[in-house]
Amino acid sequence: MSPTRDNSPASGAVVLLSGGLDSATALYHALRKGYRCTCLIIDYGQRHRREVQAAKRIARAAGCPSHVVRLRMPWRGSALTDRRMKVPTGRSLQKIGRGIPSTYVPARNTLFLSLALGLAEAGGAEAIFIGANAVDFSGYPDCRPNYYRLMQRVARLGTKAGVEGRRIRIITPLIRKTKAQIIRKGMRLGVPYELTWSCYLGGDHPCGLCDSCRLRAKGFQEAGQRDPSLDSC
Amino acid sequence: MSPTRDNSPASGAVVLLSGGLDSATALYHALRKGYRCTCLIIDYGQRHRREVQAAKRIARAAGCPSHVVRLRMPWRGSALTDRRMKVPTGRSLQKIGRGIPSTYVPARNTLFLSLALGLAEAGGAEAIFIGANAVDFSGYPDCRPNYYRLMQRVARLGTKAGVEGRRIRIITPLIRKTKAQIIRKGMRLGVPYELTWSCYLGGDHPCGLCDSCRLRAKGFQEAGQRDPSLDSC
Repeated sequence: MSPTRDNSPASGAVVLLSGGLDSATALYHALRKGYRCTCLIIDYGQRHRREVQAAKRIARAAGCPSHVVRLRMPWRGSALTDRRMKVPTGRSLQKIGRGIPSTYVPARNTLFLSLALGLAEAGGAEAIFIGANAVDFSGYPDCRPNYYRLMQRVARLGTKAGVEGRRIRIITPLIRKTKAQIIRKGMRLGVPYELTWSCYLGGDHPCGLCDSCRLRAKGFQEAGQRDPSLDSC
Repeated sequence: MSPTRDNSPASGAVVLLSGGLDSATALYHALRKGYRCTCLIIDYGQRHRREVQAAKRIARAAGCPSHVVRLRMPWRGSALTDRRMKVPTGRSLQKIGRGIPSTYVPARNTLFLSLALGLAEAGGAEAIFIGANAVDFSGYPDCRPNYYRLMQRVARLGTKAGVEGRRIRIITPLIRKTKAQIIRKGMRLGVPYELTWSCYLGGDHPCGLCDSCRLRAKGFQEAGQRDPSLDSC
């Protein structure tokens, strides 16, 4: 993928890769911008393994090195990590994004960004890419633009790199896009959406009913595209 | 330990416990303030095991439950986690705190606070205590007051609790105290300093030469106290 930024040699970036379509698009966006990307995949005890497997495959398809960090959070209280809790299904698209659902994981993106920040600082990377989105999203507080502005200040004040004037940018290229806009962008970039996994459940096939499946389906529909992951089911 | 705050029932707090004397003092301070404390101990691949062992013993001595989170950071570049790097020894007290030494661990306190924040939010705790200190310290950027003010804003903006108006306070009771003041306070609170471990190396006895040993020795000397950990060597 040819760089379009005037960086020579290529600047390093850490890309947080979840296995879903947003982070995969963020990765291909970063590559197109000319960054030398390292993927950071976090196995935080998700109720199913498909996310981490999907993230590894996407990193491989993109030809990028990846690190998998295994972390057992010492808390419960999210339907994504606690099998005793029910993942909400069948919510209408109007309801998704209003209020914070039980799939919220406490402090997740702060934790993920801190790991990305450490990796970026230690490896001399200039940027962190995260596929956060505040339009077609589940209503999580750590997906909003003001939160990322704040974390950018943390990167500057709380690291040796920042104090010494080496800036590590936190880049959220998708934050104000609809899911359809993200998918159209990804199609242009050649994102292998057939490798991505969005469903909050971990069955053999996407459930089609959880918030994440519904937002994905709406995105492909509005983008006028067929979801290639459905062909592989 | 009798509460002095007018909280009934006791408010919950997460206390980041490293095994050193500052965090032990922060724990006993929180207990004296009447908090029901849960200790969070992070095993992040320190070059020796003594820190984590010390933290566990201190939590037990204080009668508090503890969680140990095991985390392998996907980066190198700190003398505290990379055995190939040399821990600086023999630096003069005047030099300690000027510049950021090789014992700096990228993004460490941001990572620790994010784990504490998740645990506090999930468990309904109202406060996080961290024994950070910006006076007799090694010069780390993530030990300064402005960094903690920023992280307080992250706690508010980046969590469901914060968005819903439940505040989780990040409390740094020692941040502006000298090591001698911390030790005098700890002696009054009954902190079992004989259980704490400060040395950056992991020998049978503290080396006496690394920054952490020197700051500790200076603190006990200025406080006019004998370091009880020396008696157990």
